[in-house]
Amino acid sequence: IKREQRIAEESHRQDSAYLLIFIMLLTLTILTIWLFKHRRFRFLHETGLAMIYGLLVGVILRFGIHAPQSMSDVILSCAVNGSPATLLVNVSGRFYEYTLKGEVGQGKGHQVQDDEMLRKVTFDPEVFFNILLPPIIFHAGYSLKRRHFFRNIGSILAYAFIGTVISCFVIGLIMYGFVSFMKVVGQLGGDFYFTDCLFFGAIVSATDPVTVLAIFNELKVDVDLYALLFGESVLNDAVAIVLSSSIVAYQPAGDNSHSFEAMAMLKSFGVFLGVFSGSFALGVVTGVVTFTKLRDFPLLETALFFLMSWSTFLLAEACGFTGVVAVLFCGITQAHYTYNNLSPDSQDRTKQLFELLNFLAENFIFSYMGLTLFSFQSHVFNPLFIVGAFVAVFLGRAANIYPLSFLLNLGRKNKIGYNFQHVMMFAGLRGAMTFALSIRDTATYARQMMFSTTLLIVFFTVWICGGGTTPMLSFMSIPSTKHESAWPFRIWYNFDHNYLKPLLTHSGPPLTATLPACCGPLARCLTIFLLTLAECFYSCSLFLFFLVHLKIIYELFKQNKLT
Amino acid sequence: IKREQRIAEESHRQDSAYLLIFIMLLTLTILTIWLFKHRRFRFLHETGLAMIYGLLVGVILRFGIHAPQSMSDVILSCAVNGSPATLLVNVSGRFYEYTLKGEVGQGKGHQVQDDEMLRKVTFDPEVFFNILLPPIIFHAGYSLKRRHFFRNIGSILAYAFIGTVISCFVIGLIMYGFVSFMKVVGQLGGDFYFTDCLFFGAIVSATDPVTVLAIFNELKVDVDLYALLFGESVLNDAVAIVLSSSIVAYQPAGDNSHSFEAMAMLKSFGVFLGVFSGSFALGVVTGVVTFTKLRDFPLLETALFFLMSWSTFLLAEACGFTGVVAVLFCGITQAHYTYNNLSPDSQDRTKQLFELLNFLAENFIFSYMGLTLFSFQSHVFNPLFIVGAFVAVFLGRAANIYPLSFLLNLGRKNKIGYNFQHVMMFAGLRGAMTFALSIRDTATYARQMMFSTTLLIVFFTVWICGGGTTPMLSFMSIPSTKHESAWPFRIWYNFDHNYLKPLLTHSGPPLTATLPACCGPLARCLTIFLLTLAECFYSCSLFLFFLVHLKIIYELFKQNKLT
Repeated sequence: IKREQRIAEESHRQDSAYLLIFIMLLTLTILTIWLFKHRRFRFLHETGLAMIYGLLVGVILRFGIHAPQSMSDVILSCAVNGSPATLLVNVSGRFYEYTLKGEVGQGKGHQVQDDEMLRKVTFDPEVFFNILLPPIIFHAGYSLKRRHFFRNIGSILAYAFIGTVISCFVIGLIMYGFVSFMKVVGQLGGDFYFTDCLFFGAIVSATDPVTVLAIFNELKVDVDLYALLFGESVLNDAVAIVLSSSIVAYQPAGDNSHSFEAMAMLKSFGVFLGVFSGSFALGVVTGVVTFTKLRDFPLLETALFFLMSWSTFLLAEACGFTGVVAVLFCGITQAHYTYNNLSPDSQDRTKQLFELLNFLAENFIFSYMGLTLFSFQSHVFNPLFIVGAFVAVFLGRAANIYPLSFLLNLGRKNKIGYNFQHVMMFAGLRGAMTFALSIRDTATYARQMMFSTTLLIVFFTVWICGGGTTPMLSFMSIPSTKHESAWPFRIWYNFDHNYLKPLLTHSGPPLTATLPACCGPLARCLTIFLLTLAECFYSCSLFLFFLVHLKIIYELFKQNKLT
Repeated sequence: IKREQRIAEESHRQDSAYLLIFIMLLTLTILTIWLFKHRRFRFLHETGLAMIYGLLVGVILRFGIHAPQSMSDVILSCAVNGSPATLLVNVSGRFYEYTLKGEVGQGKGHQVQDDEMLRKVTFDPEVFFNILLPPIIFHAGYSLKRRHFFRNIGSILAYAFIGTVISCFVIGLIMYGFVSFMKVVGQLGGDFYFTDCLFFGAIVSATDPVTVLAIFNELKVDVDLYALLFGESVLNDAVAIVLSSSIVAYQPAGDNSHSFEAMAMLKSFGVFLGVFSGSFALGVVTGVVTFTKLRDFPLLETALFFLMSWSTFLLAEACGFTGVVAVLFCGITQAHYTYNNLSPDSQDRTKQLFELLNFLAENFIFSYMGLTLFSFQSHVFNPLFIVGAFVAVFLGRAANIYPLSFLLNLGRKNKIGYNFQHVMMFAGLRGAMTFALSIRDTATYARQMMFSTTLLIVFFTVWICGGGTTPMLSFMSIPSTKHESAWPFRIWYNFDHNYLKPLLTHSGPPLTATLPACCGPLARCLTIFLLTLAECFYSCSLFLFFLVHLKIIYELFKQNKLT
């Protein structure tokens, strides 16, 4: 027993030391950011900085410290059907529970013991999806509270939906060409199917809102350009994540043929629509429902806001939707409606809390990205594939921006100028979402090659494109102008301002003021009716919210029992 | 592959559902707290409420929903030396990594599959120590920023150190009597050594600051009583945690004999002193060193503050000290010195952040406590032991408060009256720390019985004593008075105010004003010297801070290589 305890203690101390590495990384990053801000030094964004520190620590871990041969690992050979999630090991009468952490690479069991340390600084990829991405995406949605977003909603949706799908297929086709060529010249070390190419297209089509937000917020550029770029990069994260999971769902059928099966294709499209609209609806509903009438107790309000946002994520995951997408739309809805119900003190607190969470998660992801270039065990760097990927990413982005802008300009009053298009082309950085999607599954050769290449793409875009955005903007001489609203926006804005906002928040004019004068008595009745309705709505919504939660949890258990 | 993926997805969905249960619990608690506060309803503290909700959910999970037989669990029998921390399972050429989650109870392998659901809502006990306790304890330390604490420092230290040790031994001896009696009448179902009794004494001697803080803050009772109670309950958490680990360290030698070995006893005492003073020193040093000259960037400051506090915890754990104790003293030091260096905006943010973290962690622990009464698998409720424990806890508390108060009153100017003593006796609630210490290890029969009994003690004290504190206070008619400071406090206060505070913070008078007039030129030189020194100190401290981190991480790796 004493030996066991010593091993457990030793392991605990080591884990603490590994976590310390990451905290030191973050601390260093913060201090350097401060120095940069203090000296008004702006050629590198903080995320780029975090990556550099990550790289340095990765080099030290890889080459500086030689990890000891681990004596505590044991290799068991057993006849298990696949890999169960939980393992009970019977050690002379005592049962120990083990949980699956992941696969360690095919046939690499003999290597594993050598680099236990590198394996220990490697996080479970699901950590990114369940812990680090939600605050980032939520914060992005939360920051969208701007009239300019809704003014350009049509163009943003076009870029985010149609554009991302175009980009995905263009990149997928180009990569398929490259991969076929590589197969011919014998440069390919494993299988690489057409669906893999499409998957790669989906993950590198997600542009990152982080740097855009940072740079454009500081420089006060044209509000429309800002809204277009930021809106697109926020929404296409959602599109890319759902698109990639639909492609994975399609994969098993079309694994070893590159002919399309119409049915499977249609099914994938159905999955895409179902998951996206489901996540969207769930996010919006929970965003509206968030009960925030606890004024006078800011601590309680903030805690409730935080918990409700998190439960949106979990609820979506439990339903089989995409939590990140639900959280995004929850954030947008909350920023637009529910936020106004908070007391001013709570508004500050909530904003600061999400800001801090976002800051920490973001810098952690980017420094982890740097670290992983050296600490990841099964990198596959294929020069031809990398060149192909850079070309494909460039062309894919171009095929998204230029044709769509041309089409949109046909209908837009205030055209999207060429200088805007060039900036949008240039500022399409790849960031946290691309990384998280590519690290999620690195079991096969194809996925490993994708991961390594994706890392390089992220590094390149963040350092070169991110650093070059400021000069680019002044070179393109982007003006700061204001335009008339387009009519669909005006209709929506009026409806929203006159009916939805008074109904859902306590801000804005009462309904008696916004309804036409001719229906005076009706307006008064309606106001009373609507106010009562609003009260009822608030009282019931929470109750319903819980009922739905309970129901879903119950269904999950029931379902599991029957199968 | 498809089947595997489906299982993984299913497991992920279930995990989300389980987490949702806890979030719902917290949400419900918050809403009810709000209701209570709104209606000025004060007979039950929020933590008591959280426990009740936890109990209800525990009952539902236990009796309402029948979990399905898990098909994904596999029992492996193997000849492993003890239980390794990591397991690599070779499934037909593919290697999967499994991490140890814990033991599932001796010889209960056949039962485990029946109640997989209950096992899934059970957290790894280390979560409490590494994630939930640190913010609570840190916040407690952070809230200590009061002159009255330092005014009563002598008495507080006496209660916390001598009192807790007395209480531990009194409870241990009484329990040993009870256990011996139980053995005679055949009521004992397993081994229960004297060290187990002492361990039990240590864990139930930790009183909880949470409820004290809440009730006394609202009622504005006598500041000295408040300082005594709060200071004692904060510090005795630290004493209890170190005491219990020293007893465990002593255990292997004296396992099957109840005779004391002088050497082992002395060694345990040495461990206690070493760990305590080490943790104390580390906490104070990092608390002072925390670099906070990033004014104008509140987000960065708050993030840095948060990360540094967390790294104190990890650093202490990595050194083999006790993280919780280090965090406590780090909090006290930061509140006293470093906090004043923050910009007002950062001060608000930091305070609010820690307040929120504390609130969430605290309510989570208490609702989990309620849940665990039904969800824990190996409860051992022994009526005789429970009666004995309640008697012992009562007597142990009495043996701490009354004799020590008598002795302290001999030296104190403003005596601790009998009404104060009765309140201190009554308000010694057991809470989060007691629970966390008792759930940490539930492998043996003795520990299981301790855990079940501890749960009941916590429930009783939180509900009955916590609820009765307000009536008790008015019954004892505690006045609100102010007293002269004792001379050791005045000396310390002057030294602190005149030299330490100007040196470590930017508040307070400059040194030229506080040094005697006769040494005018000297004072000016000293001021300049000290200011330069302070600058150097700030610049170097951070560098040192990192060096120490690096050194420790390096040592850990090196050590591991050699053994």
